[in-house]
Amino acid sequence: MRHTMMRYELTLTSMFRRAAEHYSNTEIVSRKPDKSLDRRTFGDFDRRARQLASALRKAGCKKGDRVATLMWNHYAHLEAYFGIPIAGCVLHTLNLRLHPDEIAFIATHAEDRFVIVDDVLWPLFDKVRAKAKFDKVIVLRLTSAPLPAGTIDYEDFLNSGDASDPLPDLVEDDPMGLCYTSGTTGKPKGVCYSHRSIALHSLGASLSDTLGLSRRDTILPVVPMFHANAWGIPFAAIMIGAKMVMPGPHLDGESLLELFEKEKVTLAAGVPTIWLGILQALDKEPKRWSLTRDMRMVVGGSAAPESVIRGLDKHGLRVIHAWGMTETAPLGSVSHLAPHMDDWAEDDKYAHRAKQGIASPFVELRAVSDAGVVPRDGKSPGELEVRGAWVAGSYVPPSDENATKWTQDGWFKTGDVVTIDGGGCIKITDRTKDLIKSGGEWISSIDLENLIMGHPAVKEAAVVAVPHPKWDERPLAVVVLKDGAIASEADLRAFVAAKVAKFQVPDAFVFEATIPKTSAGKFLKSELREKYKAHKLG
Amino acid sequence: MRHTMMRYELTLTSMFRRAAEHYSNTEIVSRKPDKSLDRRTFGDFDRRARQLASALRKAGCKKGDRVATLMWNHYAHLEAYFGIPIAGCVLHTLNLRLHPDEIAFIATHAEDRFVIVDDVLWPLFDKVRAKAKFDKVIVLRLTSAPLPAGTIDYEDFLNSGDASDPLPDLVEDDPMGLCYTSGTTGKPKGVCYSHRSIALHSLGASLSDTLGLSRRDTILPVVPMFHANAWGIPFAAIMIGAKMVMPGPHLDGESLLELFEKEKVTLAAGVPTIWLGILQALDKEPKRWSLTRDMRMVVGGSAAPESVIRGLDKHGLRVIHAWGMTETAPLGSVSHLAPHMDDWAEDDKYAHRAKQGIASPFVELRAVSDAGVVPRDGKSPGELEVRGAWVAGSYVPPSDENATKWTQDGWFKTGDVVTIDGGGCIKITDRTKDLIKSGGEWISSIDLENLIMGHPAVKEAAVVAVPHPKWDERPLAVVVLKDGAIASEADLRAFVAAKVAKFQVPDAFVFEATIPKTSAGKFLKSELREKYKAHKLG
Repeated sequence: MRHTMMRYELTLTSMFRRAAEHYSNTEIVSRKPDKSLDRRTFGDFDRRARQLASALRKAGCKKGDRVATLMWNHYAHLEAYFGIPIAGCVLHTLNLRLHPDEIAFIATHAEDRFVIVDDVLWPLFDKVRAKAKFDKVIVLRLTSAPLPAGTIDYEDFLNSGDASDPLPDLVEDDPMGLCYTSGTTGKPKGVCYSHRSIALHSLGASLSDTLGLSRRDTILPVVPMFHANAWGIPFAAIMIGAKMVMPGPHLDGESLLELFEKEKVTLAAGVPTIWLGILQALDKEPKRWSLTRDMRMVVGGSAAPESVIRGLDKHGLRVIHAWGMTETAPLGSVSHLAPHMDDWAEDDKYAHRAKQGIASPFVELRAVSDAGVVPRDGKSPGELEVRGAWVAGSYVPPSDENATKWTQDGWFKTGDVVTIDGGGCIKITDRTKDLIKSGGEWISSIDLENLIMGHPAVKEAAVVAVPHPKWDERPLAVVVLKDGAIASEADLRAFVAAKVAKFQVPDAFVFEATIPKTSAGKFLKSELREKYKAHKLG
Repeated sequence: MRHTMMRYELTLTSMFRRAAEHYSNTEIVSRKPDKSLDRRTFGDFDRRARQLASALRKAGCKKGDRVATLMWNHYAHLEAYFGIPIAGCVLHTLNLRLHPDEIAFIATHAEDRFVIVDDVLWPLFDKVRAKAKFDKVIVLRLTSAPLPAGTIDYEDFLNSGDASDPLPDLVEDDPMGLCYTSGTTGKPKGVCYSHRSIALHSLGASLSDTLGLSRRDTILPVVPMFHANAWGIPFAAIMIGAKMVMPGPHLDGESLLELFEKEKVTLAAGVPTIWLGILQALDKEPKRWSLTRDMRMVVGGSAAPESVIRGLDKHGLRVIHAWGMTETAPLGSVSHLAPHMDDWAEDDKYAHRAKQGIASPFVELRAVSDAGVVPRDGKSPGELEVRGAWVAGSYVPPSDENATKWTQDGWFKTGDVVTIDGGGCIKITDRTKDLIKSGGEWISSIDLENLIMGHPAVKEAAVVAVPHPKWDERPLAVVVLKDGAIASEADLRAFVAAKVAKFQVPDAFVFEATIPKTSAGKFLKSELREKYKAHKLG
């Protein structure tokens, strides 16, 4: 017996068309660089995204061609989020926090054909384009700065398209988006999402027990749209018809709180560093802002300290803890109190809310140690492995990690060490030893070590994470100089700063006679982390 | 460029496995025929559904083989809902409200191999099995009645299976369920659901702006599990971990209200007739039951009168209006107030809530008249057409309706006449003229006409719907006797009652000299409906 259901493709085109049919008057509010607010509707969004799709195809963009963005969160980035994929092209969000050389490497690796750039990011892009070639550079003019030579004004480009052009028929396995992640080795690796994976992620992320998104929400993604699809929120919000508030480049606590109040935001999403800034501003002036009752703050990217969850609760803001990665589109798990926990003591509730939660439907999690899959006892640690309907199955080739990051039976190895309790709730207890998580950005210690060890005076260098009150962690470099060689901390800092993005430069360089090693000859970083965990950073 | 996401099958097996991993202590409460309550957990459900799956395979059930159920809503039907599909077999829910001959026809047409029957339904089943052959008849013993000869006790059958047997690997396009619908011609037609369609339906139905299901809910499906998958609620509830309360055969207002109160039900779902019974009981004794604040009552199957919505509101019960069909798995649209309607006058709000709402994500609706797709102006009527991720693309062959019920461009023609407003909200203004909707059951007027016209004294007969305070509509037959022939109302009633289920027998037979006809020679039923709309039914 065969089923008799019709074939219906799970595409962004389906979500996109539906939005204008049902929610054409819903607002999209964007903060511009001068802090003024731009107001549009889903109807405007629909017309302009269609124009963009038409313009891309008229300009010769073919199915699967990559179109990059180098932009903050605003209406035009949202237009690109849909306009590029519904044209059959692949949206490639470039991370503006990376070093220009890295961005250029990634854009070249991805073979990006076109790029759309915020004018305020031109100084950065100017360095990128010195090393990467694009067929067309399209500039979104958010200020009165003149259009750089050899570029196309975004509005002119839109006007070259026709909103009434029919959208191409796509299938759910067509590629729609591309994100690069630094990962553990520091070699950027691309994940290419299908329409299907993002459509399913939008459904999964919207469920009551994940993010619980509704057309009654007003959603502000603080998480940048160049970070793992802004956690999929722009896609889901268009699907369910929620009002969007886009913060542009203004991500400090006061600017965000002002927007929360003015636009009656009901849900915001960002890394712990952001919520720390919000908390400090609220603690300082608790009466200044009148926020929506029970406003939800989704926290991900790295673990939110319990103190932040408690602190925000005092101001009536409810933290929702989530876990995910670029390789999981990104939402993997979300933490909520289960009904039977309602009677728990307050401390137990906070301890639970500080965990990373349970897997979404159609995502599976397990923890694996050398002895195999570990029991779900809330104690046994193992490396978190994941599979599911929006989980990557490989990196964009060529990558030598494809063989090592997936198990033989098809699970993705996350590099996070977790325990899983009897209710399936994960708690990240450790992480890939080599990684430093700074303000939601991953810094590869191996890359830094290799760089520092390139200095003529350096014999050995190990970089470890040191806890930091604002950034969660910052890198500290332990350096062994060659016999008789001389180099100061300032020398090494200048040496590194010339080669990597500013945020990747270690906060401290300390000198040792030797670096402790494991029996296999690898740096014993756990010992260094312990030794320097209270080191005073600059 | 190709996407790099892993292939992950959207199956009930994935939903099933996840339930026990996350919600093993969640309760399933069932009311037995003697009104006592049976209490189990998702953990029990997991073990027993695995046993059932194992037992079916051991007994020779192969992939795609049909296993039928003739059961009320209770824990064992839920076990069958999952245990049959996760074994790779096809769950075929037989409608116990049909005539035994019809049930036998459907079971034979579907080639059902096994059947699971409630002992309290044995008198009905005994008539079915006189005309339909099953390899195995498995009886669920809910009373102390002895096991009928030649049948297998459900518990014994379960015990022949091993809960630790591995579940077979399924793909999302494997068939999982089968429902027959009477439709407009009265010839039962089967829809065979895929795992994918039900997995996606579960996601769609759970969204905040459709039914908004959560693990914090306690859900009571009044809608029978032999009606369009009980609107998909059992599947979605297992997926999201909600407590289930199953009413068994006791569907009167008082019995339901008692369960609502005792089990703290937060969401119930059923046809308008059920809510009318609830409303009458509440109006009579408004203080008797203490219900959950803002309890949601999902209404579908036929349109809920605005008076019922208003009446239930007075008791603090919130009606959610939905539209769907067996062919749409069934959820197509759900009606909620949009945020901009919050300021509307109360009458306008009720008028909106009495509409059938907007399409779920990944479902598309349009209205088509002879002039093509009608504008979304809230005024122009057209036949509702639907396509989407959980919409049938054909009937189980052989059916001569496959060519007429789907458009050339792949939309399903629902037979309902609607208007669609600028926000995409549908309002059913009429329906396939020939159909009578009685207490959530469809009665085909054409079938009845054909039957009555089989009486030797009858020349012509037209059956039309007459409004009924309890059943929404009841059939009335307008009969023209042959010249000189004689037949009384009682004669005709007896003639019909011998051939169809009791609820299908017209409430009244009236005699006329002629039946008005259209220019094409078809009965002009609109005129008859108008003439008899206030006819006093028995």
